[in-house]
Amino acid sequence: MTATELDQLVAEIGEAILARVQGRGGKTEGLNIPELVCPGCTQRCAQSCQSKTRAIVSCGADRVSASAKVTQVDAALAGMIDHTLLRPDATKAEIQKVCSEARKYGFASVCVNPYWVPVVAAELSGSPVKVCTVIGFPLGANTTEVKVRETEVALTAGAQEIDMVMNVGALRSGDAETVKLDIAAVVAVAHRAGAIVKVILETAFLDDNQKATACALAKLAKADFVKTSTGFGPSGATAHDIALMRSIVGPEMGVKASGGVRTLADVRQMEAAGATRIGASASVKIVSSSEGAPASGGY
Amino acid sequence: MTATELDQLVAEIGEAILARVQGRGGKTEGLNIPELVCPGCTQRCAQSCQSKTRAIVSCGADRVSASAKVTQVDAALAGMIDHTLLRPDATKAEIQKVCSEARKYGFASVCVNPYWVPVVAAELSGSPVKVCTVIGFPLGANTTEVKVRETEVALTAGAQEIDMVMNVGALRSGDAETVKLDIAAVVAVAHRAGAIVKVILETAFLDDNQKATACALAKLAKADFVKTSTGFGPSGATAHDIALMRSIVGPEMGVKASGGVRTLADVRQMEAAGATRIGASASVKIVSSSEGAPASGGY
Repeated sequence: MTATELDQLVAEIGEAILARVQGRGGKTEGLNIPELVCPGCTQRCAQSCQSKTRAIVSCGADRVSASAKVTQVDAALAGMIDHTLLRPDATKAEIQKVCSEARKYGFASVCVNPYWVPVVAAELSGSPVKVCTVIGFPLGANTTEVKVRETEVALTAGAQEIDMVMNVGALRSGDAETVKLDIAAVVAVAHRAGAIVKVILETAFLDDNQKATACALAKLAKADFVKTSTGFGPSGATAHDIALMRSIVGPEMGVKASGGVRTLADVRQMEAAGATRIGASASVKIVSSSEGAPASGGY
Repeated sequence: MTATELDQLVAEIGEAILARVQGRGGKTEGLNIPELVCPGCTQRCAQSCQSKTRAIVSCGADRVSASAKVTQVDAALAGMIDHTLLRPDATKAEIQKVCSEARKYGFASVCVNPYWVPVVAAELSGSPVKVCTVIGFPLGANTTEVKVRETEVALTAGAQEIDMVMNVGALRSGDAETVKLDIAAVVAVAHRAGAIVKVILETAFLDDNQKATACALAKLAKADFVKTSTGFGPSGATAHDIALMRSIVGPEMGVKASGGVRTLADVRQMEAAGATRIGASASVKIVSSSEGAPASGGY
């Protein structure tokens, strides 16, 4: 397929999405898009055109037709990224800046610590950018009861995506049942509120068998995504881990690469290995350096 | 005072403590010990002879009369140390080992993540070693409501000491009121259950003025201790910070040095600067290398 044909196809997909979302029919059938939803967030991100665009991206499309102000590659790329600020010393002004960047570039979400959820929910109000927060973060060594309460409080404050840390110590102690129930309890609360759950494995502490077990448990517990790292552990995402995680969860769950993903090359490597979402704090740099993007000031 | 005179004094203090605890009179008056309680944990550690011994240590005594199996210096030293295992990948077997070490050496407490509190409470049952856990750890960027619930769950499970992380981001955003209320809410719950609260400032993220403010807020909120670091931040305790913290909180609160305290020399430096408690994971190594301790196998 030539670049022109690809662009044409992308434009047609965009048109079909718009048509379906706006209820005015379209060429969807001809395009043979069986499900215009993304793995792992089926009903929950299907409210808007931009969400649909992201769904397509999650399903593997390389390019999606986007607004005139953002290049095609950037829209697809930005729509994969959870724009993340989890430093404990982050100030309100820094949190607000991240929100402003997320609206501007169309990132998938803004991911912050629970204390900042109300601020982010207010800043992103009316925008398609999701409010994402972290639970049991970054150690995962909390009780299930507290993780559930933390989730409830975050959901009430406006969180739409919940990145919870698995109980790594319980897994490494051979207590798979505790790990599964811990995830399932958070998932139940989140799904009732229409939020999705990503389970952070903190792969740096696990061998491959433990990573595989953790993925299987997250899937059993009906989580929506598995995610590699907190960004606070000894190391972050690797292509090896992403491929392993994808091989266990199959195509129906999301896989998020996070921790040390700082460049466009990192993102492309993770995508190639099977990642459908990226957690990054260098998100603006990443999309600003993307292929086809203006050298500077193009947004 | 000669070493012999000091040892004699220490023996008399020990006798006086035993006498008071056992209600059989003694030489207390002659020794001029105005309050046999330690700053910051007044009523709450006054249940046993060993607690009283620690109280004296906290009040500044260098040596306390101890059992025949542990040298005098070691008992005082061990009684200052919160034996700490907060690695997220710690297994149940490792947690149990730490508890066993704490009973053997007479550490002040075992400090673990909340998930392990029931295990530690069971392991330390019947021993004077306290059960310590961490709240909002290590980022402190959680909501007050969740920190309070986390504290309640931990107290119910057997926690007696609560090391909470201050909301660093709120402090750095100039929101002192939030910081104070956050601490006060946890303190209220803990004190009702007879537990003490140490407030972790995470000094690595603060300038001196912010450290001073944080100490003042912790004191206003009626916390029992201020504590330097989580051990997960960019740096740990320094003598400069301990001295600064002591200068703000005065003699009536405890000051805990934690993060990077790995040797006996580190402990002595922190003590000299004003620390009354030490958080360490290398606790066994520290007490095993103490002055006057047998070279090995003496416990």
